[in-house]
Amino acid sequence: MKRYLMAPGPVAVDPHVMLVMAEPVIHHRSPQFSEILTRVRDDLKYVYQTKNDVFIMASSGTGGMEASVCNMLSPGDRALCIIGGKFGERWAELCQTYGVETVNIDVEWGRAVDPAQVEAALNENPDIKAVFVQAHETSTGVKHPVKELGEIVGRRENTILVVDAISAMGVYDLKTDDWGLDVVVSGSQKSFSLPPGLSMVSVSEKAWKFAEQSKCPKYYFNLLKERKALGKKTTSYTSAVSLIIGLGEVLRQFKEMGLEALFAHHRRLSGAVKTAAAAMGLELFPRDDSEAITVFKAPEGIDGTEVVKILREEYGITIAGGQAHLKGKIFRISHYGYLSEWDMIIALAAIERAMNQLGYKVEYGSGVAAAQEYFAKN
Amino acid sequence: MKRYLMAPGPVAVDPHVMLVMAEPVIHHRSPQFSEILTRVRDDLKYVYQTKNDVFIMASSGTGGMEASVCNMLSPGDRALCIIGGKFGERWAELCQTYGVETVNIDVEWGRAVDPAQVEAALNENPDIKAVFVQAHETSTGVKHPVKELGEIVGRRENTILVVDAISAMGVYDLKTDDWGLDVVVSGSQKSFSLPPGLSMVSVSEKAWKFAEQSKCPKYYFNLLKERKALGKKTTSYTSAVSLIIGLGEVLRQFKEMGLEALFAHHRRLSGAVKTAAAAMGLELFPRDDSEAITVFKAPEGIDGTEVVKILREEYGITIAGGQAHLKGKIFRISHYGYLSEWDMIIALAAIERAMNQLGYKVEYGSGVAAAQEYFAKN
Repeated sequence: MKRYLMAPGPVAVDPHVMLVMAEPVIHHRSPQFSEILTRVRDDLKYVYQTKNDVFIMASSGTGGMEASVCNMLSPGDRALCIIGGKFGERWAELCQTYGVETVNIDVEWGRAVDPAQVEAALNENPDIKAVFVQAHETSTGVKHPVKELGEIVGRRENTILVVDAISAMGVYDLKTDDWGLDVVVSGSQKSFSLPPGLSMVSVSEKAWKFAEQSKCPKYYFNLLKERKALGKKTTSYTSAVSLIIGLGEVLRQFKEMGLEALFAHHRRLSGAVKTAAAAMGLELFPRDDSEAITVFKAPEGIDGTEVVKILREEYGITIAGGQAHLKGKIFRISHYGYLSEWDMIIALAAIERAMNQLGYKVEYGSGVAAAQEYFAKN
Repeated sequence: MKRYLMAPGPVAVDPHVMLVMAEPVIHHRSPQFSEILTRVRDDLKYVYQTKNDVFIMASSGTGGMEASVCNMLSPGDRALCIIGGKFGERWAELCQTYGVETVNIDVEWGRAVDPAQVEAALNENPDIKAVFVQAHETSTGVKHPVKELGEIVGRRENTILVVDAISAMGVYDLKTDDWGLDVVVSGSQKSFSLPPGLSMVSVSEKAWKFAEQSKCPKYYFNLLKERKALGKKTTSYTSAVSLIIGLGEVLRQFKEMGLEALFAHHRRLSGAVKTAAAAMGLELFPRDDSEAITVFKAPEGIDGTEVVKILREEYGITIAGGQAHLKGKIFRISHYGYLSEWDMIIALAAIERAMNQLGYKVEYGSGVAAAQEYFAKN
């Protein structure tokens, strides 16, 4: 069966990039690789919109999140976690793992945090050293207002803002430096459109001061050690050379395209699918949604898990269902990754068919027609 | 320039395996990937010669080493580290990172540890909870006697043996279960002949009891959590799907070949190169050497770093130099990875040439002739 991957990560990868990564392996401590690594790090700064160093580690995105906790804080420190989904919960779990006391702001899943609430919590708890948030909460499709949070946290000398941008960096505008995002985590398998296996972390000057004080144990994810290695144009431990070479190729394409065009592409796919959802009579789950993914609410009486299963098993199309208490209640389609407008047409056509198959009446062609019209106009 | 990678990792990868990994990415939480992951884990048990579960994590080998420390011990515990090279030092550094007190056995670099010394240290320090050792110390080319250590540690109920087999597993015979190796770490970029990015860790029943008591903080490298995920035929965090698919292909080839043939292949390459070294009038560095790599001593007055540089820059051949205080004093050639006897002929021819270029007289063809004869007979 011909297969299509349209889940919010891992994502479809450009076959050309796959073949670039299939070139002979080179040694991680060679001048040839140092040159590639240096260029890739510079190009990452372009996407991150930062002058800060960006580190590349061999791990999934969660490794980058762990690095952001264990390098910045010490046991007994206090942190503010914004929890509006599965990945917000991960911040709190990571803090607890390292003996960091958390103040949690629980946000209704599907909603963005209110910056005023964060400001109030920081005023109430002036000893909070770090605020942990998702730029985009992949489990719900919600964008948190990190620009506003950057302003609030930026006014405090003793607090940093740590942003999980795993499904946001390279998807939409995130101005690391201008917005004061101190630590920003991303991963290879989202907008960078690569297989999983790399996490990237940027660290601001302000955050380095926290790192220098941190007493949490860390070895593999030691960012101060990585900073030293960066000076020697290498990484502390064996670099995932093939993935980094693939990242270099993707970044070359991103630069050629320009950030604005890249972001516009995601907005366009998102706009078409969201317009089509309305035309099909399907509701979206998040009230504060994003252009990164579209999260459909499974209609009353329809099991979202079944939609995912029909698409995967009968049509060869992989999308994602809901996690935790959203299992069965939603299904999610990515707009980042190696995807074109025609992939969105396929996804919508498949949803039209699956819905009817499950007994929920959707007029054939209604979603596709709305998307066609949207694409033609935008 | 046509390039040849013959360093002790990252290693050359079979282009066919590279192309298998270049196939479209599949989702890590799909039944299709669960099936692959389950088969790969089973096949890993074949190479590990174990019934224990083997976990696969997205990280370099060091991540697997860290997992072996932070999952098995608690701050204040005592551990015995056998230090005869850079990677032995890494065990001690990892223990120190987690507040584990270490008793170190310093072994002359180039020598294997004497099991009697380990037994004596354990008798003197009955509270030692874990012995950390390299099966093969990549920095010196030495094999430590892990079978004998397994017997010694196996007699103690409250001590486990943790083996860094990153450059040993799949290279030569390592009987995880028969020898009582409790935790065994390997990596993708050595004998498994893949790009860097995966670490594999096996855990014995005895070691699980240690894991259940461990109080070190861990999240990304939490093996108890991985054990739960294994039950659901998945991994806790996003699997490095493409590398795991590549691993599946390599393991298929290993099984087809059989372990004995695989090990014999490494012994044969090693035997030829070591015989050739003698014929060229070059000394080997380690006194307790291995079939995994050959470590040449740079002759008096010759800088080993220059040998590596000439091979890389003038001949397109990547081998490795020495690390730490061995920098400039040795150069190392791998026998694992996607390498044939003809690659060894190339390496030897290149060494003959580089030596003469640096003013150290080696008769042209002397190393190659000895290797030819060895290969013809063995």
